[in-house]
Amino acid sequence: MNIVIAPDSFKESLSALEVAKAIEIGFRRVYPNANYQLVPMADGGEGTVQSLTDATSGNLQKTSVIAPLGNVVDAVWGISKDRQVAFIEMAEASGLHLVPVEHRNPLKTTSYGTGQLIKAALDQGVSKIILGIGGSATNDGGAGMLQALGGQFKDHAGKEIGFGGEQLAQIESIDLSSLDARLANVEFEVACDVNNPLCGERGASAIFGPQKGATAEMVDILDRALHHFAKKVESQLGLNIAEKRGAGAAGGMGGGLLLLPNIKLQSGVEIVIDAVALADKIQTADLVITGEGRMDAQSISGKTPIGVAKVAKQYAKPVIAITGCLKEDYPVVYQYGIDAVFPIIQQLDSLDATLKAGSDNLISTAENVARLLKLSLGIR
Amino acid sequence: MNIVIAPDSFKESLSALEVAKAIEIGFRRVYPNANYQLVPMADGGEGTVQSLTDATSGNLQKTSVIAPLGNVVDAVWGISKDRQVAFIEMAEASGLHLVPVEHRNPLKTTSYGTGQLIKAALDQGVSKIILGIGGSATNDGGAGMLQALGGQFKDHAGKEIGFGGEQLAQIESIDLSSLDARLANVEFEVACDVNNPLCGERGASAIFGPQKGATAEMVDILDRALHHFAKKVESQLGLNIAEKRGAGAAGGMGGGLLLLPNIKLQSGVEIVIDAVALADKIQTADLVITGEGRMDAQSISGKTPIGVAKVAKQYAKPVIAITGCLKEDYPVVYQYGIDAVFPIIQQLDSLDATLKAGSDNLISTAENVARLLKLSLGIR
Repeated sequence: MNIVIAPDSFKESLSALEVAKAIEIGFRRVYPNANYQLVPMADGGEGTVQSLTDATSGNLQKTSVIAPLGNVVDAVWGISKDRQVAFIEMAEASGLHLVPVEHRNPLKTTSYGTGQLIKAALDQGVSKIILGIGGSATNDGGAGMLQALGGQFKDHAGKEIGFGGEQLAQIESIDLSSLDARLANVEFEVACDVNNPLCGERGASAIFGPQKGATAEMVDILDRALHHFAKKVESQLGLNIAEKRGAGAAGGMGGGLLLLPNIKLQSGVEIVIDAVALADKIQTADLVITGEGRMDAQSISGKTPIGVAKVAKQYAKPVIAITGCLKEDYPVVYQYGIDAVFPIIQQLDSLDATLKAGSDNLISTAENVARLLKLSLGIR
Repeated sequence: MNIVIAPDSFKESLSALEVAKAIEIGFRRVYPNANYQLVPMADGGEGTVQSLTDATSGNLQKTSVIAPLGNVVDAVWGISKDRQVAFIEMAEASGLHLVPVEHRNPLKTTSYGTGQLIKAALDQGVSKIILGIGGSATNDGGAGMLQALGGQFKDHAGKEIGFGGEQLAQIESIDLSSLDARLANVEFEVACDVNNPLCGERGASAIFGPQKGATAEMVDILDRALHHFAKKVESQLGLNIAEKRGAGAAGGMGGGLLLLPNIKLQSGVEIVIDAVALADKIQTADLVITGEGRMDAQSISGKTPIGVAKVAKQYAKPVIAITGCLKEDYPVVYQYGIDAVFPIIQQLDSLDATLKAGSDNLISTAENVARLLKLSLGIR
């Protein structure tokens, strides 16, 4: 029997690989001789670097970069064992968690550090970069990221603009001729599950600005700055980024990334599915087990278990989900390929104690799922 | 497909019948055409009257009785639809919950009300009485119960003794000639899962007295009183109740009951199994589902799911347990016939909210168990 175990991480508790290992332990108590393929998954959000590094037996790297407010921090990224693919999360270099609450101000924050991580990956000679852009503190249209990679944005005095979203309004000319030439030779996949355009009511500033510390007034300044940026991009580079789906992701990072060659904005979970060759593994499986920390109606919007189930159903494989918890509105997942789902909580306790019991509870739940499967009553 | 659903109640949340109905709803979503037999179960403790009344399509009765401290309360008991069997819980008439904490004093509390319930059942012409004796406030050796049924306990002055455990020390003579004659014509099964003897270190007073409000000094008085009672019973009735297993149950009620004709002290769950004809129902089942509010290592000591599993395994039927919660030490249940167990908690919440969600969570868990069974991978 072949069992593919392809869960997401359980946030604040276990990495995807740890989840997969616990499920394997539980199943092995019932099916000791089955073949288990552990495939740590992710959806492009938090934990994607860890999962993809684990899934490709790669290594984590650490690079010093400029944080959103200009201070220097160590940012972690990953590289596959064959050193061909780099895994980067924008939040590591430019994340909201790097800015103390009282200093959150997207007029000032830069995505420069994320550009430095991309550069570090190019320095390692990778042929492919996978970038997740969730959790950013920035609203600079990715200008900082582009600057770190050689892009130049001059003001009317011919001076390079400074860091932060408000600086985009000063752009007079854009020059990408010094952009890192190696970018032309890498595949660049950006995990982006946000469809918002760059500007306007549904744009980056209006929708995501407030959670990054923008007041109503700042949102207005930022939106006009991004608008100006998009107009300059169009007039000088002939690229219309303003209306592109996803351009508004990560404070306009989605739009800024479109200025790079070979760039593809894609669903995060689909990028991961591709990167870990999930379809190949599922093809020969008898059973697919997935999971995530919390399953609810939102799970159908680009979350890992539904992505896994979609692949599994292409090959008509049964899919069981094991989850940290389960919200009342979860049953819609049945329509998206999840055959049965089991939450792991065994008793009421503090959140802390429950998170600590995560691995034990996963093992227990997996064992009972396996026991039930083994009953195999022949009832249809 | 025949499915027997035979759970205990979930304490403070759902009756056994409500639990069974919720499990059926969940299963019917997957197996709409299966035959479901709902068998509300109990183990002789709290909820036994409700479960047995539900299981026999009977009716609840209400009778005014004397509470442990002499006040009058309404006590609920049950009678089967064919009016042949009465179901009584001692706690309804003589329970600790009927005595305010500051008045708990087993020197004074009487089991008289329980005797009144037995009498009320005899008045209905039943041919069988099932009595659960958990949760009592008394330590009177069942003397009060016997008094309500016509038993006489005289002191050295020839005067009937008063209520309460300390009064037993006054007994000079015992006269059971006026005992309700109808008792000779009924089967009387007492659900008793306590093995303690009447007196001594492991006796009623020492082990259960303190939780009923006895100080160390009172325990001593009570133990000597029970000892005196046993000696009088032996010398005047020729019955040795002191050493009988279970005589120490319910403040010596186990011992006092032995003075009645046709009495049988038995495991509670076995009495219930017999009363609901569980074996007959399981014989033709394809699957047995049981459950209880909390499953742990203690579950193997006379709790409902293990009793149900024991019957099921006599007929080699698979047994699934669905539980309110699950304690770390639960896995021993696998050795006692439980094939797989699933707790129903879906998310961390307050106890109150979790109890309120009990029915929904049961339905959801049952549906997922059924979905998993339906996958029926043919994996062994």
